[in-house]
Amino acid sequence: MARRPGRNFLFVPGPTNVPERVLRAMMVSQEDHRSPIFPELTKPLFEGLKKVFKTKDGQVFIFPSSGTGGWEAALANTLAPGDKVLTARFGQFSHLWTDMAMRLGLDVQVQEEEWGTGAHEEKIEEALVADKAHEIKAVMVVHNETATGVTSNIAAIRKAMDAAGHPALLFVDSVSGLGSIDFRFDEWKVDLAVSGSQKGLMLPAGLGFVCVSQKALAVRKNAGLNRVYFDFQDHINTNPGGYFPYTPATNLLHGLRESLACIEEEGLENIFHRHHVLASATRAAVDAWGLKLCAKSPRWHSDTVSAILAPEGVDAAKIISHAYNRYNLALGAGLSKVAGKVFRIGHIGDLNELMLLGAISGAEMSMLDNGVKIEAGSGVAAAQQYLRQNPIEKQEATPKAA
Amino acid sequence: MARRPGRNFLFVPGPTNVPERVLRAMMVSQEDHRSPIFPELTKPLFEGLKKVFKTKDGQVFIFPSSGTGGWEAALANTLAPGDKVLTARFGQFSHLWTDMAMRLGLDVQVQEEEWGTGAHEEKIEEALVADKAHEIKAVMVVHNETATGVTSNIAAIRKAMDAAGHPALLFVDSVSGLGSIDFRFDEWKVDLAVSGSQKGLMLPAGLGFVCVSQKALAVRKNAGLNRVYFDFQDHINTNPGGYFPYTPATNLLHGLRESLACIEEEGLENIFHRHHVLASATRAAVDAWGLKLCAKSPRWHSDTVSAILAPEGVDAAKIISHAYNRYNLALGAGLSKVAGKVFRIGHIGDLNELMLLGAISGAEMSMLDNGVKIEAGSGVAAAQQYLRQNPIEKQEATPKAA
Amino acid sequence: MARRPGRNFLFVPGPTNVPERVLRAMMVSQEDHRSPIFPELTKPLFEGLKKVFKTKDGQVFIFPSSGTGGWEAALANTLAPGDKVLTARFGQFSHLWTDMAMRLGLDVQVQEEEWGTGAHEEKIEEALVADKAHEIKAVMVVHNETATGVTSNIAAIRKAMDAAGHPALLFVDSVSGLGSIDFRFDEWKVDLAVSGSQKGLMLPAGLGFVCVSQKALAVRKNAGLNRVYFDFQDHINTNPGGYFPYTPATNLLHGLRESLACIEEEGLENIFHRHHVLASATRAAVDAWGLKLCAKSPRWHSDTVSAILAPEGVDAAKIISHAYNRYNLALGAGLSKVAGKVFRIGHIGDLNELMLLGAISGAEMSMLDNGVKIEAGSGVAAAQQYLRQNPIEKQEATPKAA
Amino acid sequence: MARRPGRNFLFVPGPTNVPERVLRAMMVSQEDHRSPIFPELTKPLFEGLKKVFKTKDGQVFIFPSSGTGGWEAALANTLAPGDKVLTARFGQFSHLWTDMAMRLGLDVQVQEEEWGTGAHEEKIEEALVADKAHEIKAVMVVHNETATGVTSNIAAIRKAMDAAGHPALLFVDSVSGLGSIDFRFDEWKVDLAVSGSQKGLMLPAGLGFVCVSQKALAVRKNAGLNRVYFDFQDHINTNPGGYFPYTPATNLLHGLRESLACIEEEGLENIFHRHHVLASATRAAVDAWGLKLCAKSPRWHSDTVSAILAPEGVDAAKIISHAYNRYNLALGAGLSKVAGKVFRIGHIGDLNELMLLGAISGAEMSMLDNGVKIEAGSGVAAAQQYLRQNPIEKQEATPKAA
Repeated sequence: MARRPGRNFLFVPGPTNVPERVLRAMMVSQEDHRSPIFPELTKPLFEGLKKVFKTKDGQVFIFPSSGTGGWEAALANTLAPGDKVLTARFGQFSHLWTDMAMRLGLDVQVQEEEWGTGAHEEKIEEALVADKAHEIKAVMVVHNETATGVTSNIAAIRKAMDAAGHPALLFVDSVSGLGSIDFRFDEWKVDLAVSGSQKGLMLPAGLGFVCVSQKALAVRKNAGLNRVYFDFQDHINTNPGGYFPYTPATNLLHGLRESLACIEEEGLENIFHRHHVLASATRAAVDAWGLKLCAKSPRWHSDTVSAILAPEGVDAAKIISHAYNRYNLALGAGLSKVAGKVFRIGHIGDLNELMLLGAISGAEMSMLDNGVKIEAGSGVAAAQQYLRQNPIEKQEATPKAA
Repeated sequence: MARRPGRNFLFVPGPTNVPERVLRAMMVSQEDHRSPIFPELTKPLFEGLKKVFKTKDGQVFIFPSSGTGGWEAALANTLAPGDKVLTARFGQFSHLWTDMAMRLGLDVQVQEEEWGTGAHEEKIEEALVADKAHEIKAVMVVHNETATGVTSNIAAIRKAMDAAGHPALLFVDSVSGLGSIDFRFDEWKVDLAVSGSQKGLMLPAGLGFVCVSQKALAVRKNAGLNRVYFDFQDHINTNPGGYFPYTPATNLLHGLRESLACIEEEGLENIFHRHHVLASATRAAVDAWGLKLCAKSPRWHSDTVSAILAPEGVDAAKIISHAYNRYNLALGAGLSKVAGKVFRIGHIGDLNELMLLGAISGAEMSMLDNGVKIEAGSGVAAAQQYLRQNPIEKQEATPKAA
Repeated sequence: MARRPGRNFLFVPGPTNVPERVLRAMMVSQEDHRSPIFPELTKPLFEGLKKVFKTKDGQVFIFPSSGTGGWEAALANTLAPGDKVLTARFGQFSHLWTDMAMRLGLDVQVQEEEWGTGAHEEKIEEALVADKAHEIKAVMVVHNETATGVTSNIAAIRKAMDAAGHPALLFVDSVSGLGSIDFRFDEWKVDLAVSGSQKGLMLPAGLGFVCVSQKALAVRKNAGLNRVYFDFQDHINTNPGGYFPYTPATNLLHGLRESLACIEEEGLENIFHRHHVLASATRAAVDAWGLKLCAKSPRWHSDTVSAILAPEGVDAAKIISHAYNRYNLALGAGLSKVAGKVFRIGHIGDLNELMLLGAISGAEMSMLDNGVKIEAGSGVAAAQQYLRQNPIEKQEATPKAA
Repeated sequence: MARRPGRNFLFVPGPTNVPERVLRAMMVSQEDHRSPIFPELTKPLFEGLKKVFKTKDGQVFIFPSSGTGGWEAALANTLAPGDKVLTARFGQFSHLWTDMAMRLGLDVQVQEEEWGTGAHEEKIEEALVADKAHEIKAVMVVHNETATGVTSNIAAIRKAMDAAGHPALLFVDSVSGLGSIDFRFDEWKVDLAVSGSQKGLMLPAGLGFVCVSQKALAVRKNAGLNRVYFDFQDHINTNPGGYFPYTPATNLLHGLRESLACIEEEGLENIFHRHHVLASATRAAVDAWGLKLCAKSPRWHSDTVSAILAPEGVDAAKIISHAYNRYNLALGAGLSKVAGKVFRIGHIGDLNELMLLGAISGAEMSMLDNGVKIEAGSGVAAAQQYLRQNPIEKQEATPKAA
């Protein structure tokens, strides 16, 4: 293939754009991961991740794995085969985690929700209330369903669980949420949260993060699911000293140090605000095109990815492949049930207005080239309008006085 | 200053965007520049640059310097104090080279041209015809005046010189032209061409390139301008073996190897085509905004940079600083005579459609924020329209048969 | 801590020194791992790894994990809880794999061997002969025990298994062997081999490699050990197209492409030869010091790491920490049973003579500073002597004729 | 050529080994060198360099050039053709600077000194005393003659000039001295000091540094040597704002920021100490080999490079080429008068004990392979002995109390 000039516009909802300084920080020679100075690198990482999870009491684990490994760590450390869990399924990723639970031998009670909606707190409450015997050990929720651009309300789910007076643990997949949209481990009394490096954390893929409450840690002894690689215990034995039970992915750890510094400098609340502004601008473009999101209503809107329904009769896959081949724009494909029906614009990670406008321009051109009846420039103009009125940098971020 | 998320959109007309693989190629440990294997790196660079200059007979020199150093090398190796040269001045860079010639003690005959136009071949012919005594030793022309977005017609100037039957040497500054718009050293009988690394060659600044004809090399012995650092002779003594008279900037040489490979892969003619398409799209946007270029007519249009006149009463400097501060877009400022009157969009180097559309969006928003009366999205829509119809990849590039 | 000038001498037996070009190759922006061009990167990786494993029939899997993950993948995909396996334990890593098998619920028959020896093929044959009922499903062997510098003879073990006429699968951990000492998957009829990226493959940690025979793949359906992340099946479903069941660690894959190119260029047999020469030079130094290896006899000598016994009364840990703190030399520590008794020099990965001599010098100085009675310079002189007579580049590597 | 495993041992006296963090800092995308934030990068560089030169009153200039460009800047900004200068010539670099002065049209009074000695302060005093008419405008001295491993005593030369009561300016080439051996611009009343990036500053080649006293700046108006590229005035006009008269080599400036941080962290005095220790260890090895330095007596010993005389009848060039080809060790060649007679070990830049011992080992093996009668290991042992007793980190560096 001939050289493609210029940069690829990466707008899949992960892996996301990695800041150059993070990429640079990873360019390090190998080192002895058992040296006396290695903990100078590693110990602050655990502390930094706790801030991102918004937890004081939780314990964070770092696995050399993808987020899928984090999912497995979550289940395998806390549950025994045959244990009952409650899940909601409404997209490819909530499906895959549900499927994993089944394959691991759990007894999975699935709430099937319409794709384009998310976990319904009222139905979860109902199910928990009905579970008089407290057989349900854990409720599994995907915070941000990347396949459909849907965010579930974890705070509301926690409230529903409390209302039901049910002792089940709350497990949350925030792979494509953490570091991009608000997540409050302690305040929402989450028991186990799973994330990965390649989304809001602005790193290459290769690290899985799991944050675990003391309550969830307490049940690990009873867990009957076999595991060694993902066993919390081996990490609990070694992490406090700054070490790991096996060779860690040191280059990614160096990158993590830098990405945590990026997050600290921009500020988590500022980052959430920026994601909201860029998402809103994207939604303004979708409106201007006269198209619809997969997300059924604003209640479900995700600030990290917009899944856009192609008009009847147009193959979304063609919009995506043409955008890639002709305009060097990587859009997210529709997965499973929505394959061919949606294309996705990820607006997550290290992103700003002009990157997004470039992507919106590209999506627009690809749709036009594929015969979609939209007005040229309309999406861009609507997004511009929104962005001019809403700076991505939160104004209150500046301290008011010395 | 707080961290700025996302990438800077670099649209000054140099330094230009450097392909990641070129940046990567420069990440090398230091080496002995007198080692037996060093020439494996260096010798092909001279050959590669000759292809870019389109020369077989010319000799290329590589200086650890900016393009300004190349200018000085050109003059100091070929002329003696008091020697007469003819130049045309029509922008900040043609001014600076003219000024350098004066400071070096040359007798400079300046053709002042209106900014927005370039070197007028007919006037050059006239001046040469008038110079019966052949006192003019060299004609100095800036191929692409970066300050005003004007390209002069070097082929026509050569024709004019031939028509005048005058033996003056032809010196061309193609700093912001080479590798982006067509340049034909041999065919146009250029005697000395100057360029730099940070424009069409897609490298960081730090290398000056000078291509010299045998005719120009022949006069170097008579040159009375003092110089050592820029003396061709020391390079002539060492370059054939693959070495340099002093320590070369080896990391940039590694980068140069990779950028020459990029150029080879994309193909020079394809690259010129791409620059023409992106420039045309930019001009379509300017038209749609109802604005005018600094370049007075299509004859002078530059395919590497567009200098755009801000409407009466609007300070172009504010458009530029707002674009930088609010949208992380670096536009080129108006220099000298056109300061405050123009802003420049460089469309040179490693660039594609969506990068350009992002920049056009940003310029549009900055103008709107500064009260310029344009229609939101209009420039983007016009550019999109052009780009959809004109692929940046030349269609004929694909061989028609096996 | 103040800046330490110069390079760290990394002589732990992994992570190993990564060639600069491999590090450089990893400096890539993120990309869509579901793009149409992604397989151009990934497909050749599987082919390249097969060459390194020396297999045509085996299937290679690449996990975003450490080698420990590879261990778990090996067991979890082929065995059911309660299945019987035979292992030999003679060092920390053969211990850990044995321990993992136990924790995963397998019925582990352990042959305890003296540390400093390895797996005894004659005893394995005996055990298999005794297992008339063919209850033993697999024989697990560590090819190169990193903790003691011991290499077991896999070819001999295969012969023993054949002699016993036993159908058990042969599982080999070659984490610190593959790509450094000879390994022949097909010829030795290995059924499952595990390795990692951070040893002979000259990459950062973060990838686990597993090579599986068709015979071993055939039993995966019967495997009752729960697993999803490490399930071969999901990879079998996606790898042929060049994709993965979850987000792969793309930067490491780019690095892997480059490290495979390095291996190809140097040549596997040349690499084995180089490791043998550097190991022999190290052993010459140990001899000259009057010290002993942990490996009991030449039969067990490892060409990738030498574990050296500190003299009676000297704490090996002090030699190691002093070497690190004073001379910036990272030696491998004694683990478990041999803690404080041995220090290890890893001579594996991207290494040459002078790097090794620097490390031997450092070990020598640290021993002298710790009161070990050796002659200054004696180890270096002995190693030099060996190295002068034995080039690291195999002479036969040059083809004898056109 | 086949891949060479492991790292090259770079022991030419420049380019020197660049710390990985400096290399990493240079991996930055291009930027607008006229942006409002560019001075945040550049202004501290001038301040940092002043600390390295040990000046408060001097002004530092940064040129995109090699050190040779710095030489030319020095002469061209302060002298007119025909001006008389006094120089001492005792090696290839003092020769080249002398030669440049001649080629630039200066009237050069040369003190020829035996190679292996340096500038003799007593003879300089004599010459200045004899110059009753004060025709000598400047005394040019090479601080550290890289070709012969000789350091001249600048403090003593200043004293001699003062004793002579002569107003000549003092020009010093400290290309291979600055940042490695002590240099005191203000205290020694140096008027103009020249250096480059690729030696003690631990950067790739590509930047020339010139530090100029107010006294020297004052005469720049009278300077009749033509120059533009190297004209101080253009820099004086732009540097205070943080800008440059032409496009600077931004990637090297990013590297410079990091190398200045390295110097700050290690501490200049610590760095000088380290160079002295490594140089002394090298000289101990030379002694042990029974060989002689080119430097005639300890008075002339350089702490950044040792030029070693090969024994009668042995071609030093063979020792060098064999070291390079067989052991991947780059030694410095003998230049001009000492070609074939000396080989040089550069012990300058980012270096530590084991790197040096590796190089000494390599030199030792190459000499042995070339038939030099030395005892194997003898040089290494002597160097080890010295290094064990003399830590490279100055003990007083630690503050004595809180």
